[in-house]
Amino acid sequence: MRLATIRTATGTRAVRIDANSAVETGETDLRALLSRPDWAAHAASAAGPAHPIDGLDYAPLVPSPEKIICVGLNYRDHVAEMGNELPAYPTLFAKFAPALVGAYDDILLPAVSEQVDYEAELTVVIGRPVRHADAERAVAAIAGYTVLNDVSVRDYQNRTKQFLQGKTFERSTPLGPVLVTPDELPEGGWAISSTIDGEVMQSSTTDQLVFSAVDLVRYISTIVTLNPGDVIATGTPGGVGHARKPPRYLTDGAVLVTSIAGVGKCRNTCRKEKP
Amino acid sequence: MRLATIRTATGTRAVRIDANSAVETGETDLRALLSRPDWAAHAASAAGPAHPIDGLDYAPLVPSPEKIICVGLNYRDHVAEMGNELPAYPTLFAKFAPALVGAYDDILLPAVSEQVDYEAELTVVIGRPVRHADAERAVAAIAGYTVLNDVSVRDYQNRTKQFLQGKTFERSTPLGPVLVTPDELPEGGWAISSTIDGEVMQSSTTDQLVFSAVDLVRYISTIVTLNPGDVIATGTPGGVGHARKPPRYLTDGAVLVTSIAGVGKCRNTCRKEKP
Repeated sequence: MRLATIRTATGTRAVRIDANSAVETGETDLRALLSRPDWAAHAASAAGPAHPIDGLDYAPLVPSPEKIICVGLNYRDHVAEMGNELPAYPTLFAKFAPALVGAYDDILLPAVSEQVDYEAELTVVIGRPVRHADAERAVAAIAGYTVLNDVSVRDYQNRTKQFLQGKTFERSTPLGPVLVTPDELPEGGWAISSTIDGEVMQSSTTDQLVFSAVDLVRYISTIVTLNPGDVIATGTPGGVGHARKPPRYLTDGAVLVTSIAGVGKCRNTCRKEKP
Repeated sequence: MRLATIRTATGTRAVRIDANSAVETGETDLRALLSRPDWAAHAASAAGPAHPIDGLDYAPLVPSPEKIICVGLNYRDHVAEMGNELPAYPTLFAKFAPALVGAYDDILLPAVSEQVDYEAELTVVIGRPVRHADAERAVAAIAGYTVLNDVSVRDYQNRTKQFLQGKTFERSTPLGPVLVTPDELPEGGWAISSTIDGEVMQSSTTDQLVFSAVDLVRYISTIVTLNPGDVIATGTPGGVGHARKPPRYLTDGAVLVTSIAGVGKCRNTCRKEKP
C-alpha cells in the first residue's frame, strides 16, 4: 500500500495512492492517519473522495512530525571513502518540521549561503508507539519507507561542532512523495541516488547501511518513545558535493532528483531566496 | 504578567498567575495562547475559571513546542574555566518535546546511564512569528522568560560528536513553572543557580551570556521562522557535574532545584527508571 499527504483547496488530506487515483482516508495528514491503531485496515478500505493521480499536489509526507531524527555516517562506502572506522553507535541529530517541503516543491536556497549540499536518504516513518523495542517490536513499529533529501547548508553546519543549524533551514528538505509499506518492497538493498540536472551525484544501495532501519528504531527507542508519524532519515551514501574536488553545490534553477528504487522519487527545483 | 500551563481534571489549561489564583484564559496551553496575535491583552483581561495558587499542577510551560533550541558554550565564566576562546557563532542543538516535564514533576533517570548531569538555563519563549529579525523585531518576538534544566545524559551525549541523543531522553527536562513577561524583570544580570539536595552546584548571573536572548533570536531567525511557543534554552554556566573532579551525577531520590532570580524556580525529584 502507498499512502501520502496531498494539498487540496480545503487543506491537506491523507490519501491511499491507487493505480489511477488518490483516495481520501478521512484524516488531514499521514501523521493523523498513522495515529489510528487500525491505520492499515482503515486506509486499505478507505473509499473517500478520489483525486486523479496526475497532478496531485504532494505536501511533505508528514507535514508536522513530532520528531525528525537524522543519522550521520551510516553508509559503509561513505565511511570507507572518508578513511573512517565503522561507528560503534549511530550519530543522531535533528531537523525541525518547517524544514520540510513536498516531493515536487521548490527547495529554498538561503540568501546567506553559497554552500548548499544534497544528501539522498532512505527514510523510515513510524506507525505505532514504541519504547525499548526488541527487534520484533521495532519491525512492527515501521509503517513504511520514503525518500528524503537531507539538504545541508555546509558553512552553517560547520560553524560549530553541532550540525543542527546547517540542517534545519526553512523549506530545505524534500520528504515523500509516498510512504510504501514494507510488504510492497523486495528484500535486500535498494538502489539510492541523487542527480543534479540529470548528472548522477550519488549512487549506492541501502545494503551499505551500517545501522539498519530496525537497528535505528531499537536504538532511538532506548532514548525516547517513537510515535506515529515520526521520521528517521537513515543517512546518506558517498558523493556529496562538499566532499568533491572542486566542491559542487546546489544553485538557483538546478533540479535535484532523489530516488530510491521501489520507494519513490523526489524532484525539486532549487530557488535562491531573495535577500 | 505571569503565565503558565496547568493540568486540570479535564486536561491542560493556559492560565494567568495572579497573587492568589490562576485564572484560565480559554486556551489549552501556553503555545495556543501565544499563537493569538492579541495574547497579551487577552491574557491580561482573562476572567475564566480560577484555581487556588497553592497546589497547582504545572505542566511543562509549553507542552509541545514546534521547536526546542538549546545553546551550548554560552557563558563567559564557563568558557573561560574550560580554557576555550569565546565562540564566533552560537552552538545550537535540539531537544524533542517528550523530553519535557513540569516544574515540579519527577525527572526520569534512564536505566541505561549512570551519568546524568544538570544544566541550569535561562530560557526564552517566543510570542510572535519572526524571520530575519533585526534587534527591534527580536525584542518584540520575545514573549518572556522561564527556567529550564537541560538535563544531559553524558555517556550518550559523548558517544558521537552530535549531542542530541544525550539531550532528549524522555521526561528529563523541567520547563517552567511560569513565563514572566520582560516588563516584570529588572535590567541586567539575573542570578542563576542549580542545587542538589540544597548544595549549590552552579551559581552565576545571566550577564555572563556570550550571546544574549536578542542575539539568539536574531541568529536563529536567519535559519528558520521562530513561532509562538518556541523555546530557546540559552546555555548553562560553569559547575556542571561532568566537569567536576570527581564527577557528580544525579541519583535516585536527589532533589534538583533550578533557580533564576525573578524568573522562577523548578524543583524536581530524580527517579531512576525501572529496567
